[in-house]
Amino acid sequence: MTQTMRLYDLAGAEPDRRFSPYCWRTRLALAHKNQTVETIPWRFTEKKAIAASGQTLVPVLVDGDQWVSDSWTIANYLEDKYPDSPSLFGGPGGRALTRYYSNIADGLVRAIFSFVALDILQHVAEQDRDYFRESREKRANTTLETLVSDRDDRLPALRASLSALRLTLKSQPFLAGDRPLYADYAVFGPFQWARCISPFALLENDDPIKQWRNRLLDCFGGLARAMPAYDA
Amino acid sequence: MTQTMRLYDLAGAEPDRRFSPYCWRTRLALAHKNQTVETIPWRFTEKKAIAASGQTLVPVLVDGDQWVSDSWTIANYLEDKYPDSPSLFGGPGGRALTRYYSNIADGLVRAIFSFVALDILQHVAEQDRDYFRESREKRANTTLETLVSDRDDRLPALRASLSALRLTLKSQPFLAGDRPLYADYAVFGPFQWARCISPFALLENDDPIKQWRNRLLDCFGGLARAMPAYDA
Repeated sequence: MTQTMRLYDLAGAEPDRRFSPYCWRTRLALAHKNQTVETIPWRFTEKKAIAASGQTLVPVLVDGDQWVSDSWTIANYLEDKYPDSPSLFGGPGGRALTRYYSNIADGLVRAIFSFVALDILQHVAEQDRDYFRESREKRANTTLETLVSDRDDRLPALRASLSALRLTLKSQPFLAGDRPLYADYAVFGPFQWARCISPFALLENDDPIKQWRNRLLDCFGGLARAMPAYDA
Repeated sequence: MTQTMRLYDLAGAEPDRRFSPYCWRTRLALAHKNQTVETIPWRFTEKKAIAASGQTLVPVLVDGDQWVSDSWTIANYLEDKYPDSPSLFGGPGGRALTRYYSNIADGLVRAIFSFVALDILQHVAEQDRDYFRESREKRANTTLETLVSDRDDRLPALRASLSALRLTLKSQPFLAGDRPLYADYAVFGPFQWARCISPFALLENDDPIKQWRNRLLDCFGGLARAMPAYDA
């Protein structure tokens, strides 16, 4: 009998507010592979709980006695371990082509952080607040308040930087074509993260990127729509 | 007996200086599909020569009585018309995933233009000079001289904007994995364009993007290396 997989999933003060852009990729990847998973709400400071992974960050997936961390590694693990369920990449060529999407998405997380940083602080668990503020302010080399203060002015540039993504999603429903693959889940992560944590409207309603995001919210029985979020 | 295909290929004052980022994609795509092609040097103002395509821009491919224009349309045409030669996309999933690369590459052309615009002017054919200057200055809303004047200051930002591409090419030899596919040719186009027309060093020599570019220069018997260029 197979044990249900477990996923350590970043949560806020409310255990249901799941807001890691990287964990969201993994959750959709698991759903795509028809895998059921028990998600365990995890806070930034609970490093000990995932120590067996050799990592201090989530997502961390536990599959039997296997601990797998890093969203790209997890996606590849799932693809190879469960070859009979639908491919995340659309084949070997697709796997290599998906790597860039994953890296683009990581860049998007960094870009969007400067818009939602303070909103995140307002949602993290009490025990995570000092850790979050200190580590992120050190990285940003400024206070979270200063970081986001001019976000309205920077919004047009952020939206303009998404033009290739927008153009692509104007011509096809998903990045992978008629159906989503991991490339979609990877790039969806940052938008879902922002949506879960911040009322700030990164995208206009008629933006093809937002319409694509909404299509992904509908996937897998509305899995990503079911959790606490803004504009839900 | 099959007729050799013809490709209208943007040329400078020297007929061998081929510098369209979009034509380069097509040339590598044709080589990938094992298709021989006669390239016809074409200048910006020779609109009549390609009028049969319904287009005023190159690449324009003539295959028997078929006129095909637009680099993405041409790539799809070649993939469908010549299914027995190596796939440009690595299959149907790969085709959809490649669209974003093509759009990213178009954005790169716009970004790089503000670095090499004046160098292009110095290489275009005499009959194209006024057309090129007028059309591009109108689009840029400034003179070509002013446009490029601060390029040294803007170079770090351009290089930083390529971080996801760089990271990807650090972990795999080509965007499509161990061998290049159309995604590689699409993104290669802007770099080859700049290389053909400008001595300005967009990339550092130890940049994984430059090393990838050099690998593509070696493909197909050095096809893209064989034409007049800088740092060849």
